[in-house]
Amino acid sequence: MISRFYTLTTYPAGLPDLSTFALESAELPELEEGEVRIQNRWLSVDPYMRGRMTGIRTYIAPFELGKPMEGGAIGEVIASRHPDIKEGQRVSHMGGWRDIAQLPGESVTPLPEGDAPEQAYLGVLGMPGMTAWTGLNLIAECKPSDNVLVSAASGAVGSLAVQLAKAKGCHVVGIAGAAHKLAWLESIGVEPVTYQDRTAQELSDAIKLASPNGIDVYFENVGGICLEAALAQLNEGARIAVCGMIEGYNAEAPAPGPRNLSQLVVRKARMQGFIVADHWASYRYFLNEVTPQVADGRIVYQETIKEGLESTPEAFLALFSGANTGKMLVKL
Amino acid sequence: MISRFYTLTTYPAGLPDLSTFALESAELPELEEGEVRIQNRWLSVDPYMRGRMTGIRTYIAPFELGKPMEGGAIGEVIASRHPDIKEGQRVSHMGGWRDIAQLPGESVTPLPEGDAPEQAYLGVLGMPGMTAWTGLNLIAECKPSDNVLVSAASGAVGSLAVQLAKAKGCHVVGIAGAAHKLAWLESIGVEPVTYQDRTAQELSDAIKLASPNGIDVYFENVGGICLEAALAQLNEGARIAVCGMIEGYNAEAPAPGPRNLSQLVVRKARMQGFIVADHWASYRYFLNEVTPQVADGRIVYQETIKEGLESTPEAFLALFSGANTGKMLVKL
Repeated sequence: MISRFYTLTTYPAGLPDLSTFALESAELPELEEGEVRIQNRWLSVDPYMRGRMTGIRTYIAPFELGKPMEGGAIGEVIASRHPDIKEGQRVSHMGGWRDIAQLPGESVTPLPEGDAPEQAYLGVLGMPGMTAWTGLNLIAECKPSDNVLVSAASGAVGSLAVQLAKAKGCHVVGIAGAAHKLAWLESIGVEPVTYQDRTAQELSDAIKLASPNGIDVYFENVGGICLEAALAQLNEGARIAVCGMIEGYNAEAPAPGPRNLSQLVVRKARMQGFIVADHWASYRYFLNEVTPQVADGRIVYQETIKEGLESTPEAFLALFSGANTGKMLVKL
Repeated sequence: MISRFYTLTTYPAGLPDLSTFALESAELPELEEGEVRIQNRWLSVDPYMRGRMTGIRTYIAPFELGKPMEGGAIGEVIASRHPDIKEGQRVSHMGGWRDIAQLPGESVTPLPEGDAPEQAYLGVLGMPGMTAWTGLNLIAECKPSDNVLVSAASGAVGSLAVQLAKAKGCHVVGIAGAAHKLAWLESIGVEPVTYQDRTAQELSDAIKLASPNGIDVYFENVGGICLEAALAQLNEGARIAVCGMIEGYNAEAPAPGPRNLSQLVVRKARMQGFIVADHWASYRYFLNEVTPQVADGRIVYQETIKEGLESTPEAFLALFSGANTGKMLVKL
């Protein structure tokens, strides 16, 4: 059986383009004892993958040039030599960026029973959702009385962060760009603030209008002027959960940081980076809390779907131009 | 009785100069019930005072123009209408920048009994020492196995931070400028690294040489290239205690921050600002731990002393040119 997969052709400086990726194919070897073969149905593309295209080990190894790329995926087992995994089982796994994956059975996770559509386990009930829950609860220690600010608030992570904070009873402000994203935020009871065509000072003023009592928790996905504006509005004892800083992921040279970092002292604030993988032991607590809210519609989610394996690079690149609302997915 | 005191003439933009301060005098009113009158013997000047010269409330109110300035001081009670405070008692208090202070008895603290020279309670056993202890222990949660980096490592705060970390058994690197400061650091077993004439990258390389196993705890007093260089050398789970960022205190326009703040995510690191006043309930734990080490010479300290009330502004301004080694004091 032939597997078609993407490889990385180069470690790009700056914004990758379509030439960064090559679609290749290869005959899969015979299934070995313990392995499973999966027909992928959904592929995930996520901003963190840009960090694996630098050739430098960070918290995760870089992609190897010329080797199949990896990423979250959902598929159906079509052959199994693993005693606990049956043909027809739906699984989530890291063998994405390809149509057919062949992996050790230990590395795949059967999807939980339930009414949620399977691709939700790549989004609101998967890694991005768990990231939002972890950052808000375990890192920022968000309480019902907090005023919460989220950047990239309509993205895969941000859109759940704002809703989880709303569900706690927090006053929530979301930063986004396009008008339809701001409208969506408003529709779920989040104060929308645009960053477009604004200086850090102007964004800061807009945040103050939207949250007159300041900011106690900032969920950081962006960096740049969003961080500088947030720092200016911090309350005493504020907590910043740093999930990522997408603004810099494609920078050819690193850009300067915020000019007001000393607000951390003035406001006795804490800024903490985190990687969701470190907190995966809490995934079942997350599922227990969030799955029922997704099932009954208290938590809503949006998806931006591209069709076909060949659209995977384009879907990935679109993450950096703000083209997605909610989770960006590729449907095979 | 006449009190001579300094007032602030203006809220300076950029570096203050001697014209920022005016020496005035006034006849003190009669002592009221509960008040004490103190002949000051030592005045403290500290970098944080610059923040009170901006006219903006931060974590502490600004100095009022034309009113007596305030600051840490040690003196002897020369008159008392407070039942618990006797004439001849040595006290620490906030009525500095003047020769004779008249204050409510509740606002002064009798010096502890002991062999330490009285001015030590403005330095190694006072606010700066308590700041070092708080940042290292309560904020950065420093452990014996940590690799510790301290900026402004020969200053009033930094010089105790490096010694407390050494006493725990940590590997300690200190950043300072002048050769005699680096030599002092080396003499107490701290790896000295200069920031002078270096880019952030060069400073980062020098830190790596001095601490090949990376940095687990960074005690931040400076900002600027020191922070950028430290971020580049962080280990996973590193903690940054942000005491201050003196580099920016006199900036006319805020300078950009570090270009590599996303290292907080990559290294899952925490950066936390703090104000020592919030932790003053722990002062007796600090004294219990540090006083014996100062008394028997295990902890050493240095002082830079200016003579006479008239030298107070000059002593304060010298803090920003690195002219002090250890605690800067004015002796009356």
